[in-house]
Amino acid sequence: MTAVDVRIYEVGPRDGLQAEDAAVSTDDKLRFLALLADAGLREIEATSFVSSRAIPQLADADEVMRRLERRPGVRYPVLVPNARGLERAVAAGVDAACLFTAATESYVERNIGMGINASLEAFRPVAGEARRRGWWLRAYVSTAFGCPYEGEVDPRAVVDVCERLLALGVDELAVSDTVGVAGPSDVRRVLAALAAAGIGPEVIALHLHDTRGTALSGVMAALDAGVRAFDAAAGGTGGSPSAPGAAGNLATEDLVYLLDREGLRHAVDLDGVLDAARFIAERLGKPEVGSKVGRAGGWPR
Amino acid sequence: MTAVDVRIYEVGPRDGLQAEDAAVSTDDKLRFLALLADAGLREIEATSFVSSRAIPQLADADEVMRRLERRPGVRYPVLVPNARGLERAVAAGVDAACLFTAATESYVERNIGMGINASLEAFRPVAGEARRRGWWLRAYVSTAFGCPYEGEVDPRAVVDVCERLLALGVDELAVSDTVGVAGPSDVRRVLAALAAAGIGPEVIALHLHDTRGTALSGVMAALDAGVRAFDAAAGGTGGSPSAPGAAGNLATEDLVYLLDREGLRHAVDLDGVLDAARFIAERLGKPEVGSKVGRAGGWPR
Repeated sequence: MTAVDVRIYEVGPRDGLQAEDAAVSTDDKLRFLALLADAGLREIEATSFVSSRAIPQLADADEVMRRLERRPGVRYPVLVPNARGLERAVAAGVDAACLFTAATESYVERNIGMGINASLEAFRPVAGEARRRGWWLRAYVSTAFGCPYEGEVDPRAVVDVCERLLALGVDELAVSDTVGVAGPSDVRRVLAALAAAGIGPEVIALHLHDTRGTALSGVMAALDAGVRAFDAAAGGTGGSPSAPGAAGNLATEDLVYLLDREGLRHAVDLDGVLDAARFIAERLGKPEVGSKVGRAGGWPR
Repeated sequence: MTAVDVRIYEVGPRDGLQAEDAAVSTDDKLRFLALLADAGLREIEATSFVSSRAIPQLADADEVMRRLERRPGVRYPVLVPNARGLERAVAAGVDAACLFTAATESYVERNIGMGINASLEAFRPVAGEARRRGWWLRAYVSTAFGCPYEGEVDPRAVVDVCERLLALGVDELAVSDTVGVAGPSDVRRVLAALAAAGIGPEVIALHLHDTRGTALSGVMAALDAGVRAFDAAAGGTGGSPSAPGAAGNLATEDLVYLLDREGLRHAVDLDGVLDAARFIAERLGKPEVGSKVGRAGGWPR
């Protein structure tokens, strides 16, 4: 892999598409995945082995993974919500998986129908099997900066869930601003609380939604604190099925533009990302790409 | 005036409206100005005494200033492009004025039909008269971070123009990212070049357009460098008649949201700004407010 200063973890095909109303065909998803790899992305969350009742947008997860043309050097994690999802992931031959919980009880409850303790218990066998198989394992900690049902979130709640996830053997914690409320000082505060508990930036990826325009200022604060992995979705797709008012993920093209201006290496090509962003916006029937750089283009142009 | 950590300088009625296609009636402009003052804004650039041929959107500048109900404690600067504009400003009884030039020759040429040297010579009598009358005087330095015709801009060009404007007696330099290309390190670089030339943050306001999503990360970098004044336009209106591809000004509501999260005092009420933003978006015939916080609302909601 090319040496990079920052890892960009692409979540568009999973977190982006799961929250969009429009259905995207399996062929188009595969084309989107190919365009993302063409752009130089080396970690692309491909789909979710969730129930098709819960998220019909990703009902074709098995077919996507069967037909996916895996590029050398690219990691394609999949979301695995439970034991049934684990079976499907094993059958699909994946080597990287993601778990999903949150820092607030109400959000986990509405999202996956159980509380935080129950979600962690349910993950135990899943994580154990993933570890035995040598999979790379990530866990999402949603609502780490604010909850649509509980409001402000105590950083201690984030630390507590992160500690328990690390005890399950996860490699990476995706600390997530699900509703997009965090300013840079919020990012600093949560990262400092994690660091004080011995959870350093090397196991953390920051997952931001740009709902209120503060995502890139949060990225800068996290870079200062040593975080080197950021989630983003080409085209700024997404939202959250359980988060009223949440806007899309931080757009990969907006993140790439910032990192380019800052002179940080990430091995992703802006024009390639814009190709992927335009492709998926069109397939979703959007009148324009849902990101600043998607509309304005790069610079100098 | 309430003690503040940060001054928010509202440019919507002038810089915002001058670049919008839709015409806004004088009554609606006065209502917009009133809503901005209601929101707590204490510096509101009201209009421009430019030729109505050049900018028909502001052809009613004399009437706006005649009918404006000036609130105690609120400064209402106006743009004064030349000697004719100065006469009109004097007749209108203003006490604060703005000059407009840029760091790049091509941009000044296309914008006001003369080069940088000629623009500064033309400002000399205007600035002199403004000083004699005791007016507060600001100067815009456009294209300080990038030019639509010349590309990247050398910070030395910014320093040179700023030094010459200060020699004319201006109180404040609005260092402007006209096309919206700057990342935080660009902001740091230009501010450092100015500081090295003895131009400190106390005479600088940062004027950002959020074309590529980086404006708030630039605000954070400027705050770190000691800048305490930021331009913004309620509703994120604007662009530039001479800057192809430029998007709107940094939205006042996005700036207020960030400053609130950072715990910085500015005396502006987010809900009041959102009222003004929604009002002007509707009058401009826009389907929605052109800002992140305008669409998502504040937090907690």
